[in-house]
Amino acid sequence: MSVTATARSAVDALVSALPAGVVVTDAVRVEKYRHDRFEDLAAGMPCAVVRAESTEQVQVALRWATEHRVPVVPRGAGTSLSGGATAVDGCLVLTLERMSGIRVDPDRRVAHVEPGALNISVKEAAAGHGLWYPPDPGSYRISTIGGNIATNAGGLCCVKYGVTADYVLGLDVVLADGRLLRLGGETMKDVAGLNLRQLFVGSEGTLGVVTGAVLRLVPQQGEVSTLVASFPDLVSAGTAVTRIGRTVRPAMLELMDRVSINAVEDHSPRGLDREAGALLIVQSDAPGRSRAEEIATVEALCEEAGATEVATTDDADEGLMFVDARRSAGDATEARGTLLAEDICVPVDRLPEVLAEISAIAVRHDLEIPVVAHAGDGNLHPGIVYPPGDAAARDRAWLAFDDLMALATTFGGTVTGEHGVGRTKTRGLAAQVGPDVLAVSHAIKATLDPLGLLNPGALLPRDPAEGS
Amino acid sequence: MSVTATARSAVDALVSALPAGVVVTDAVRVEKYRHDRFEDLAAGMPCAVVRAESTEQVQVALRWATEHRVPVVPRGAGTSLSGGATAVDGCLVLTLERMSGIRVDPDRRVAHVEPGALNISVKEAAAGHGLWYPPDPGSYRISTIGGNIATNAGGLCCVKYGVTADYVLGLDVVLADGRLLRLGGETMKDVAGLNLRQLFVGSEGTLGVVTGAVLRLVPQQGEVSTLVASFPDLVSAGTAVTRIGRTVRPAMLELMDRVSINAVEDHSPRGLDREAGALLIVQSDAPGRSRAEEIATVEALCEEAGATEVATTDDADEGLMFVDARRSAGDATEARGTLLAEDICVPVDRLPEVLAEISAIAVRHDLEIPVVAHAGDGNLHPGIVYPPGDAAARDRAWLAFDDLMALATTFGGTVTGEHGVGRTKTRGLAAQVGPDVLAVSHAIKATLDPLGLLNPGALLPRDPAEGS
Repeated sequence: MSVTATARSAVDALVSALPAGVVVTDAVRVEKYRHDRFEDLAAGMPCAVVRAESTEQVQVALRWATEHRVPVVPRGAGTSLSGGATAVDGCLVLTLERMSGIRVDPDRRVAHVEPGALNISVKEAAAGHGLWYPPDPGSYRISTIGGNIATNAGGLCCVKYGVTADYVLGLDVVLADGRLLRLGGETMKDVAGLNLRQLFVGSEGTLGVVTGAVLRLVPQQGEVSTLVASFPDLVSAGTAVTRIGRTVRPAMLELMDRVSINAVEDHSPRGLDREAGALLIVQSDAPGRSRAEEIATVEALCEEAGATEVATTDDADEGLMFVDARRSAGDATEARGTLLAEDICVPVDRLPEVLAEISAIAVRHDLEIPVVAHAGDGNLHPGIVYPPGDAAARDRAWLAFDDLMALATTFGGTVTGEHGVGRTKTRGLAAQVGPDVLAVSHAIKATLDPLGLLNPGALLPRDPAEGS
Repeated sequence: MSVTATARSAVDALVSALPAGVVVTDAVRVEKYRHDRFEDLAAGMPCAVVRAESTEQVQVALRWATEHRVPVVPRGAGTSLSGGATAVDGCLVLTLERMSGIRVDPDRRVAHVEPGALNISVKEAAAGHGLWYPPDPGSYRISTIGGNIATNAGGLCCVKYGVTADYVLGLDVVLADGRLLRLGGETMKDVAGLNLRQLFVGSEGTLGVVTGAVLRLVPQQGEVSTLVASFPDLVSAGTAVTRIGRTVRPAMLELMDRVSINAVEDHSPRGLDREAGALLIVQSDAPGRSRAEEIATVEALCEEAGATEVATTDDADEGLMFVDARRSAGDATEARGTLLAEDICVPVDRLPEVLAEISAIAVRHDLEIPVVAHAGDGNLHPGIVYPPGDAAARDRAWLAFDDLMALATTFGGTVTGEHGVGRTKTRGLAAQVGPDVLAVSHAIKATLDPLGLLNPGALLPRDPAEGS
């Protein structure tokens, strides 16, 4: 289905069909739209980039793509860690970054948001009305709502507040043939008809292009208290995670393993305990005095499980320091070399075993694999690091990447909890879900995008038989 | 696609293919499986009933149905209020009531549940481990998890805790051709591939038959406090609802209008204020002392909005009395005549206007329409009542039914918030979502069920062109 060279005349027709400045064709500017954060060296060369300003322009672009059989790679801020927005040869890159409007309706507790709006901008707009948009992927300052919807992005607060899908009440989606579907709307509940809305959430631009969303807002989060606990080993930390999850609902329950603690300390020292086997960072946003009770409960559970040191604070800034230390693990890991970001998720009680297996995989392939985790959800981010330019290490890194996906599947988990399959995990997906689910997924894709033009190679293996 | 007479030999083949007692063919016993709570007089006559005991038996039944082109109506406890489980002529009724196993894994905070398990049984099993399965449709004592999943059932607590879909981590689904899909699993987050799981939730048995689910559990709800506020009119009550929703997250926010208050008092007196324009019943489950603070906030907001009387209680039994009064409105309404149950949902701030319009519709058609509402979600249950056997009143009731669906659509709402489209609301669905969404829904249905055998006539209009 890939079109390696789209006739100049076809591109000229697209330029004519859209306002000046919307279609970008010069090589230098197109270059900026070839890669996402995965930085795939094999990224293809687009025939053009459409910087859409409206739903109508998206429809024009997709009708054009269908007419000329041009693959389309939709794109927000290009922060995908799994190659979900990597260009393919001859494609049209359709960027939604200019569609960034946000309108909050506080009485209805919703925000009408265009796909190019940044997550943080939605949070800020909501906060202006005393409301809150909870989803907070690590990229929340730089990623768009469209990308968040495309991947059903998670984050740190989803252990209590759920993922992006839980906040999507309405969606406008343009199909490959240019038809606009308006799904759901401003109601909190809606079971009228098939739940197409949730089918598009997390579909990584392979079924349609989201041009608008109605997002559910909730009252602003209150004050938070923070707890940091050091554990001698991963088993005791994992035990604490399981017990905490059975007992209370923390607003955050994060884990750093020893390798990630030391990566952070090497990169920008925070005074974390380099000797700890694991750290847990827990927040409570329970209201009033009950926050102190919840933190005390968590403290007792950590100590019971074998924590060697527990610190708590009600001070927001001090709490933020610990959360920032956790959030900085990504940068700290990237600073150590080239990064392959993993995102497996397993049943919560398997964390200790899975963390031990990750260490074994690191040893086996002679690599460094620091791990941070949204531990309360069993969602792990092992970051495979290798020296830039070291081809042998790069090969070992990819072997470790495959081993980690297999590990997740073996332990009843998933190859991706929140980053999306993108172009890096289609093999893992096939192994995880098996041939029947894959066949049905391909059939639904073919129903909505019969020419296979939308984000080809992402989410699903190109060949329906692959993995069967 | 409907098969009005299935050859005796085909039924004999089914009987032979399954263990003794699984296939029911005698007329008296089959009769019990023709209707659901909607009590459709036009319900069809099944050729047989399969009382499945296992996923494998469901597969056998569906392969048989595909081979012989027999429509299949899947069924849980038959509590549908919208005819979702009403038999069609010549169909096989596939009841899941005997598959009622429940296994709780407390460390993973999940329950593995067969579709015939009652909602209340899942709650009880979870409570045995200090855990909680929140969804609580009005039918929770008598409806099955399979039916709850088929309709994405809501309830009273979803204003804070979400709907059934929010708790479905994994699904086993048998397709019309007998293939078993295993979707999701025990992980809290999973974005691997298309979200087929959520496509099946709420699909009312039209895409496949759910034979197992992994449900997410949370720590047991703590103590609740209850507030009851009387308002002179619907506008002041609606204003309170909007303000409460912007400020706090109550665990319940229900409304009864004057007609429903009086229906309850007529049926089983509870000492409710018959003169009130509306009552709000609000619960807080905030932990510790903050519960009193949350109730005080709600009380102040009710008084600001014009409440004439506000009562609060921390006593669980006393609180339950008020909740029971609200829950009894269904029985009280049914006791007044034949009931057509409505289930529209609108943006929360439209409640006062919509309630006024409902009163106008009642007057216009000379009917009684008591209304209770999951007000915090904008989800209304107007209950259209008419004298049994009064054909003219019955006709007026159906006109009112259509008017209510049109009202929902006019106000940016949905024809069904939680009951499902079933067989009573397909016209309303078509008007609400429009021809493109309907066409795509039919296309997806055709992809998964190419012979159109699964629950024909439910959820989607039979004719793809209807409503366009």
